[in-house]
Amino acid sequence: MTPDDFRRHGHEMVDWIADFLDGVGSERVFPDVSPGDVRSQLPEHPPTEPESFDAVMADLEHIIVPGLTQWQHPGFFAWFPSNTSYPSILGELMAAGLGINAMAWATSPAATELETLMVDWMHELLGLPARFHSQSEHGGGVIQGSASEATLVAMLAARWKVTNGDVNADGDTTRLVGYATSQAHSSIEKGFRIAGIGTDHLRVVEHDDSFAMRPESLRELIAADRAAGLTPFFVCATNGTTSSMAFDPIEQIADVCERDEVWLHVDAAMSGIAALEPEYRWVNDGLDRVDSYSTNPHKWMGINFDCNLFWTADRASLIGALSILPPYLQSAAAEAGAAIDYRDWQVPLGRRFRALKLWFALRTDGVEPTKQMIRRQVGWTQQLAALVGADDRFDIVAPHPLNLLCIARRGATIDESNALTDALIDAANATGTVLFTRTVLDGRSTLRVSIGASATTFDDVADAWQLLSELANSASSTPD
Amino acid sequence: MTPDDFRRHGHEMVDWIADFLDGVGSERVFPDVSPGDVRSQLPEHPPTEPESFDAVMADLEHIIVPGLTQWQHPGFFAWFPSNTSYPSILGELMAAGLGINAMAWATSPAATELETLMVDWMHELLGLPARFHSQSEHGGGVIQGSASEATLVAMLAARWKVTNGDVNADGDTTRLVGYATSQAHSSIEKGFRIAGIGTDHLRVVEHDDSFAMRPESLRELIAADRAAGLTPFFVCATNGTTSSMAFDPIEQIADVCERDEVWLHVDAAMSGIAALEPEYRWVNDGLDRVDSYSTNPHKWMGINFDCNLFWTADRASLIGALSILPPYLQSAAAEAGAAIDYRDWQVPLGRRFRALKLWFALRTDGVEPTKQMIRRQVGWTQQLAALVGADDRFDIVAPHPLNLLCIARRGATIDESNALTDALIDAANATGTVLFTRTVLDGRSTLRVSIGASATTFDDVADAWQLLSELANSASSTPD
Repeated sequence: MTPDDFRRHGHEMVDWIADFLDGVGSERVFPDVSPGDVRSQLPEHPPTEPESFDAVMADLEHIIVPGLTQWQHPGFFAWFPSNTSYPSILGELMAAGLGINAMAWATSPAATELETLMVDWMHELLGLPARFHSQSEHGGGVIQGSASEATLVAMLAARWKVTNGDVNADGDTTRLVGYATSQAHSSIEKGFRIAGIGTDHLRVVEHDDSFAMRPESLRELIAADRAAGLTPFFVCATNGTTSSMAFDPIEQIADVCERDEVWLHVDAAMSGIAALEPEYRWVNDGLDRVDSYSTNPHKWMGINFDCNLFWTADRASLIGALSILPPYLQSAAAEAGAAIDYRDWQVPLGRRFRALKLWFALRTDGVEPTKQMIRRQVGWTQQLAALVGADDRFDIVAPHPLNLLCIARRGATIDESNALTDALIDAANATGTVLFTRTVLDGRSTLRVSIGASATTFDDVADAWQLLSELANSASSTPD
Repeated sequence: MTPDDFRRHGHEMVDWIADFLDGVGSERVFPDVSPGDVRSQLPEHPPTEPESFDAVMADLEHIIVPGLTQWQHPGFFAWFPSNTSYPSILGELMAAGLGINAMAWATSPAATELETLMVDWMHELLGLPARFHSQSEHGGGVIQGSASEATLVAMLAARWKVTNGDVNADGDTTRLVGYATSQAHSSIEKGFRIAGIGTDHLRVVEHDDSFAMRPESLRELIAADRAAGLTPFFVCATNGTTSSMAFDPIEQIADVCERDEVWLHVDAAMSGIAALEPEYRWVNDGLDRVDSYSTNPHKWMGINFDCNLFWTADRASLIGALSILPPYLQSAAAEAGAAIDYRDWQVPLGRRFRALKLWFALRTDGVEPTKQMIRRQVGWTQQLAALVGADDRFDIVAPHPLNLLCIARRGATIDESNALTDALIDAANATGTVLFTRTVLDGRSTLRVSIGASATTFDDVADAWQLLSELANSASSTPD
């Protein structure tokens, strides 16, 4: 592709994306495909001669796009939002165009320094405690690819600290135990596997009726493990669980962790961004007493995936766990302690210039549109809750302080209720106009209504409820 | 930013990138900045009102770009190439625009299926063994973010296999031992830390004068560990080490690993792409006997970072190590075994639509331009080696079968030699026209000439050599 071709096709693609995002509501949210359908439409072997850009774009339109789940669709109520925004798309384009590697200060100083500034800007916008600021005595922030990675590095920092760094050499995790509820994200369990600690060493803390951690249960489990000669080292609390958006009581959990000197990580992947809006800044309660914290601008905030923010109040433990320094990675600036090498704050070595996405978005759009969207969507969730609550065919099965509503069909038995709910999800998704995901809350099959796509309007929410209401009457949602 | 603004600014940015890549040779390769210089030019606090796109672009041009290390510069001979190409930039733009999450088949079927097809296309183009093909009985490939992550998941798969999966629950890594040379990438050591195995359990296998692994040393170490009741579980061999591009003898290492039933991973992050060119397909020798393999299109091939390819002949062990299935991630297609969920092939959960970059590049440019570039750059490396070899002020300190030349100044003592080499590197880099990185090979300070940037011409190589030759005469390179 010549530079002139790049200009021409680049302009075309920018326009294509604007058209796509404008028209994404006319696509099916979930594609009408079975496994293998997409691949079978594409050549099994790479081309032997270059093809035209137009040919690729034609296949994109006719084969790829109809085979995608449309996360930007206004009827997307599934999993969690994964909003993209115009300035963040441009930031990603710029990162690809500059083609630098941000693994260390020396591999591109401006990329590192802009990243530090962006995590500090976000620190300010979210109203986070001083202990996490990059210019605090012991803390700092970094952009990770995902909350899974943030959770993993928190675990590794905690492990390093509790073993005085010995674990790096001896790998001895025999006595370590960690804690989370059954509602915590799957990445906790995955992290315990990856880190070679093992899921037998992960205690399931009891949760209450709101699916939030019971601090008393945590206290008892830790005491029992201490009595058994084990070493409690890590608690993962969640601000907004994936299944039901439950909020663990951070202050009370911090009481336990401080007394027992256990690292407390708070995973706020989805909901932490709500703190942009002062009305919801309660999501930060207690964070001045935690060791590490993480939230995802790539969910509700419209910074396209991937952009996770991770802060710690103890960067020395993080770097102790992850820093390796072969000769070919040494630099005078880093040795003098004057520069940050973010490769030592994460699992991989290489790093994209992700700070650009945040910089473009925070400067050109600012956070006011996001704050307005958050207020609107929380409001719609409460309006929907009122409708569902007034309908005796449905139960609301979890608290809904923000933008997730968990509902279930009523039934004479739990099995009937579950069958009705499962059938309702399938029937609704089959229409292609909406997409819901299912979860299970204390044995109850649940339809999650996650209201977070930036294209979603109140009409989309109202239409979705009307659809659910109608389907709940129809034969298709009656169990056999 | 309105859709119309996005179109206008998107077009401007595409043109800006074309201009930038055309003119990157006029920038300094390594910026003339000290730690803090970039941040001090930017506001400490986020803007309270939206700013114009032009203001952001002006700061990008005047503050960010002059503070970057220019990996696309024709005088970039540092670390390893990180080439970007026009179609791959467009692929990244499209991924950001579509805004989907490729973590599982159900979260976007076409993204998963295109990824499987792309790893199969690359499998064919590189001439890899059948056991790695996605349609083979036990193997398959996936796009990871980096070779560090590929090495880590290989280690986790090996650990799962040797413990029959028990490690997921009990985390018992007490008896496990792994093997690599001192020349292997730092991610091996980092992986042993992350995986909770510990670097005491990583044996350093001897290397020969060419910095390649001595299979006999591996055999002896494994035998001694077995005799001591330990469990050898993982060997990482390297096809093209970072320091000197040494090639470990895979066939002979496979002899040892097969007999001892030890997982053999081959890290070909930098050099594996050479197999695109049949003349260099010897880099694949022995791969039909290894358990996992990894190479980076985001280095020499021009697919912008990040795009690592990882293949295994034993996907069951990989998935066993990494699969977690909470209710909110279940899908009928995956349960039926008909679909791949790539989240179970990697550390993070979320995934970008990276396959698009490969698809756009393989269809519009194909691999012929890359093959030609590889042939040229290998040829220039050999021409440079002839010049250096004829100059009695220099030694060539490692074999140079491909595109990396390791050189050192001669001196009366090793200390004098090292001081001269270090001073030469500093003096050359200070000109801003070239960038070399330093390594240490068996105690000898070494200047690495990595010839891999796609913009580099023979004139750039000749100029670099003339600069080094002149600096070697000048006072600035004489040690105090």
